[in-house]
Amino acid sequence: MPALPTLLVLDADPPPRLGRLTGRARIAHADETTLAGQLPYADILLVWDFTSRAVRAAWPGEGARPRWVHTASAGVDHLMCPELAASDTVVTNARGVFDQPVAEYVAALVLAMAKDLPRTLHLQERREWRHRESQRVAGTKACVVGSGPIGRAIAKYLKALGVTTAIVGRTPRTGVHGPGDLNRLMARADWVIAAAPLTPDTHHMFDTRRFGVMQPSARFVNVGRGQLVDETALAEALSKRWIAGAALDVFEDEPLTSDSPLWEVPGLIVSPHMSGDTAGWRDELGAQFVELYERWEAGQALKNVVDKQLGYVPGH
Amino acid sequence: MPALPTLLVLDADPPPRLGRLTGRARIAHADETTLAGQLPYADILLVWDFTSRAVRAAWPGEGARPRWVHTASAGVDHLMCPELAASDTVVTNARGVFDQPVAEYVAALVLAMAKDLPRTLHLQERREWRHRESQRVAGTKACVVGSGPIGRAIAKYLKALGVTTAIVGRTPRTGVHGPGDLNRLMARADWVIAAAPLTPDTHHMFDTRRFGVMQPSARFVNVGRGQLVDETALAEALSKRWIAGAALDVFEDEPLTSDSPLWEVPGLIVSPHMSGDTAGWRDELGAQFVELYERWEAGQALKNVVDKQLGYVPGH
Repeated sequence: MPALPTLLVLDADPPPRLGRLTGRARIAHADETTLAGQLPYADILLVWDFTSRAVRAAWPGEGARPRWVHTASAGVDHLMCPELAASDTVVTNARGVFDQPVAEYVAALVLAMAKDLPRTLHLQERREWRHRESQRVAGTKACVVGSGPIGRAIAKYLKALGVTTAIVGRTPRTGVHGPGDLNRLMARADWVIAAAPLTPDTHHMFDTRRFGVMQPSARFVNVGRGQLVDETALAEALSKRWIAGAALDVFEDEPLTSDSPLWEVPGLIVSPHMSGDTAGWRDELGAQFVELYERWEAGQALKNVVDKQLGYVPGH
Repeated sequence: MPALPTLLVLDADPPPRLGRLTGRARIAHADETTLAGQLPYADILLVWDFTSRAVRAAWPGEGARPRWVHTASAGVDHLMCPELAASDTVVTNARGVFDQPVAEYVAALVLAMAKDLPRTLHLQERREWRHRESQRVAGTKACVVGSGPIGRAIAKYLKALGVTTAIVGRTPRTGVHGPGDLNRLMARADWVIAAAPLTPDTHHMFDTRRFGVMQPSARFVNVGRGQLVDETALAEALSKRWIAGAALDVFEDEPLTSDSPLWEVPGLIVSPHMSGDTAGWRDELGAQFVELYERWEAGQALKNVVDKQLGYVPGH
């Protein structure tokens, strides 16, 4: 009988659904302190704690390396390092699980801002009845930056709400604008939605210059990665009323500490990186990994394979 | 030359777009104190101030009465009285203007509640980063009570969000359930949306018994008329956690006074009757009246004619 493959799981809480692999894999657990020592003995690494940067730190070390790394997240920026990128190891991600939840979350933010819901809740706390006119969402224009499944799901939801929506991606193709159109599309948008992967190209792509081209009535939403945005520039754009509002679900440093000035930037909604996390999401992530494991076990091609140079799963 | 028709406008602020009728109508303005004295001289009454109940008070008086009354609102409950119902006077309403804005507003509330946005904003005020799982809206079930254009627009938006949606109306027909199905549909719904006209049949239709059939995880939204809901019963249902949340945009007594207990009912979002009022709405209401006026002037049949017995515009 051949030896069972060793599946090393980087986690704080054990993932659900892995019981299905009983007798089919030797499952070991690692934390940030033990990961480096265990990596040489693992065939597969499951990065369940996707908030951790331990892989990036441990990977360049000595010894053998897993042939397959799966991360229970859409982004892979927290684990990619030059040594992993240069290796033969296959990296897969949780493509698909977050599309609809994140798209719903963006729709919630866009509608809440259009309907002035934060102010309504604030006035309710003060027991003040103050009628205001709100905005119609249908007929507005959006620019979604990020042409992966999440960006496309966001665009689909916005279109269902009657919003004229353009998608911007790295490579222009049918239905997707290239980076050269970004400034022009941002300048006419009522809503700019950031849903791009974090790569050297996208780091701080939303900066003073980009907020400067937006309309004073426009609003900005980030559900991608915190490092897409120059947070200081955004805070300044809001304070100076270059733009009308913004919502951030992701931040350069997470969790945001209580002394961060971002909590109180006027017109900014702060949420704790929760856009994709609907009830049952851990089950879905676990089931998705088990499905990939079964393909790997059967010698079939994996799905959701990340292009390690690009930093995301390329697709149509 | 025939005398110009007299158009009496009940308003606080003069309506926009009526300049188009210059030289075609003699326009007079009334307020609550002068309405009774002016009614006998009016050919047409435009109820621009739709928060006023002055028509109901003044109509039963002495003298001639306008042949046509138009109200710049969807509901007609604020002006109907037995004498007007029994008369030959035609009553028209603002059918159509509010459909999409109200539907967007309901979508905003449903998404905000599913994504726990009120708590996010509350935690932001306290500078607390607290990740929570939220709910997926796609795959949930809604029951929309009210089968007019507003109810149907709400159903259309909810369906676009992936919500299985049933509509309940006074008369069962294709795509619309009759009142006999209401309890059953409410019992399985995640979202119950009230968008019915206020009539003797719908007064306090949402009472202790109806909230009692709802699921503990379900939420209730009222964008119709305050009197559809027994507010004390709703407050009790929320306090006892019979249901998970609610949002009221309309109330038995408006504006809600600062001493109302509703402001602080746990899980209740209070907004000041603003669901239909998006930027430009007064223009649209004015333009709609001018269009009806031109039909009337040309001797054509009016549109949006209210069935005064039913209390709304019957339609497919």
